[in-house]
Amino acid sequence: MRGVLDIPEELIEVQQRVADGLVQVEHIFTTQLRSDLIAVDAMCEHVERYRGKMLRPSLVMLCGAASSAGIETGRSHAIAGAVCEMVHMATLVHDDVLDEAEIRRRGETLNQLRGNEMAVILGDYLIASAYELCSSLDSPIPSRIVGNASAVMCTGELLQLHNRDNLSLDETTYFEILERKTAALIGASCELGALCSLGFTQQDHPTTVALRTYGQRLGVAFQIQDDVLDLTGTEEVVGKSVGKDLEKGKLTYPLIHHLANAEPEQRGRSLEMITAAASGTEHTSEELARAIRSTGSIEAAQAKAESLVAQAKTSIEGIEGSPARAMLMVLADAVVQRTH
Amino acid sequence: MRGVLDIPEELIEVQQRVADGLVQVEHIFTTQLRSDLIAVDAMCEHVERYRGKMLRPSLVMLCGAASSAGIETGRSHAIAGAVCEMVHMATLVHDDVLDEAEIRRRGETLNQLRGNEMAVILGDYLIASAYELCSSLDSPIPSRIVGNASAVMCTGELLQLHNRDNLSLDETTYFEILERKTAALIGASCELGALCSLGFTQQDHPTTVALRTYGQRLGVAFQIQDDVLDLTGTEEVVGKSVGKDLEKGKLTYPLIHHLANAEPEQRGRSLEMITAAASGTEHTSEELARAIRSTGSIEAAQAKAESLVAQAKTSIEGIEGSPARAMLMVLADAVVQRTH
Repeated sequence: MRGVLDIPEELIEVQQRVADGLVQVEHIFTTQLRSDLIAVDAMCEHVERYRGKMLRPSLVMLCGAASSAGIETGRSHAIAGAVCEMVHMATLVHDDVLDEAEIRRRGETLNQLRGNEMAVILGDYLIASAYELCSSLDSPIPSRIVGNASAVMCTGELLQLHNRDNLSLDETTYFEILERKTAALIGASCELGALCSLGFTQQDHPTTVALRTYGQRLGVAFQIQDDVLDLTGTEEVVGKSVGKDLEKGKLTYPLIHHLANAEPEQRGRSLEMITAAASGTEHTSEELARAIRSTGSIEAAQAKAESLVAQAKTSIEGIEGSPARAMLMVLADAVVQRTH
Repeated sequence: MRGVLDIPEELIEVQQRVADGLVQVEHIFTTQLRSDLIAVDAMCEHVERYRGKMLRPSLVMLCGAASSAGIETGRSHAIAGAVCEMVHMATLVHDDVLDEAEIRRRGETLNQLRGNEMAVILGDYLIASAYELCSSLDSPIPSRIVGNASAVMCTGELLQLHNRDNLSLDETTYFEILERKTAALIGASCELGALCSLGFTQQDHPTTVALRTYGQRLGVAFQIQDDVLDLTGTEEVVGKSVGKDLEKGKLTYPLIHHLANAEPEQRGRSLEMITAAASGTEHTSEELARAIRSTGSIEAAQAKAESLVAQAKTSIEGIEGSPARAMLMVLADAVVQRTH
């Protein structure tokens, strides 16, 4: 959202409204985390630097606007946006502990800087603060949506951990992991945006359902693109450690596709290289990158992501045309075009 | 609660009601955590074995009964009880990761059995599930109370980590840690019990305030007793690793009292021993135990816990006399008399 998109003239106003909303989100975010303990405040400030694209709050704003007559969104949208961003941030902090990551957004990770223990508890603090903030909305329904999405995210992480070093991971399980790990919260962000406009009891409203589906499809596409960037990106551009998926024994779409499509001999050699990368004896090698390209697996992953983006866009075709809806279409395309 | 107390004849009925309530709590607890993923279910089953005294759900039931005319409690009390127990369980799972504990309730810890990563995410799953469950209550207020208590607990943990290896930790900071780390959730359990009976908007009702205060005082007393048991207990009786506080560089009340009251020479020698224990070069030695006893520091800790229990009891004197209130008095005494 933040200036990375080429925005058509007629969408500049809605983009400005989202930007205004994000300023409110940032303010609520910071205020909620403020503590009377200096030590806590210092760590929260560090984590606030992780904030990047603000995809989830942007989706809350846009889906909120797409669900109402105008393009206005109110305080409830900003609260819901801050909640989703805070839950997301908590998962980043815990993910970095799990991945032993040292770099995020060009800065040191919290676990690297302050140790795993501080990072685990700070993640917990972020989650708890997100729920506390969410309960300031005037209904238990947003808390239910956020609680459920968070629980589903955890089952996705657990499923992924369970399949670590499983070199015969199939596409079905891979998508199951993605739908839980990434798509659930992005879908919830869209749903919350709609409900803040339509009223919290409108979970079955066609607009709510359409926007939630949009978010879920987009979330899967987003994660596939992340997986592609993990293999093709450079640390400088992506802003975090690269090739980590493989080192942690996580098979991603391009690799699953490659192993399913390589000739037997190449497959054997690739499995050797993947095992070496996973055991840390070797970094993702140029040879493996070439092998993955030889089966067209990067392109296949990108095609898959594009097809999911198309599905996301189709799902909101039925809701009333508005600048916000047009912006959601632009945003969907941007997810697969991004390089970081 | 579970048969460990000597219950006067007239309280047997209320005890039975609590026991019935706890059966409901267990059922809700298990149902909420059930997942369509076998791997998740297996770990949840393991964690369910951690359930011990069920102090928090028992307090929800008793405070609920003490706030209403009869001794009956309903489904909302059972839900609130399961929520508090689940949050507590999540902190145990993460605490064990932080403490590198190997044993809990005579069984291996999850981190020992399945690794730190699984344990971190399972803790997150428990927290998320607790919030989701909490939002099934018909108001956002319980979510606010639980979210706030959880956030405060995390700040307590962070403050404790921040003071690790701080051998000049003072009593004020020590109590600040306890009030946040342990007392906040126990206070919230009592508050939720009251609100489930009185209505969720009755946070300022004198009965709610009295019961919350009772819980907070009791929580601090409970943790001091835990600290005493960490020094005096045996693994067999306590059911978890003993002397861990010291090994993790945590000063507890008996040690703070000892260092403040020992003669300079003894103080110097004790600091040496504490440093050795904290650096892992030596386990809590018999000599240190003798030194702590020589300044009467175990007795001082116990006296402090007893005084807090007395305060807890005083705080509920103003509410209407009932078997439930009488039971809360018995329970308060039991907290400092327990040996595990």
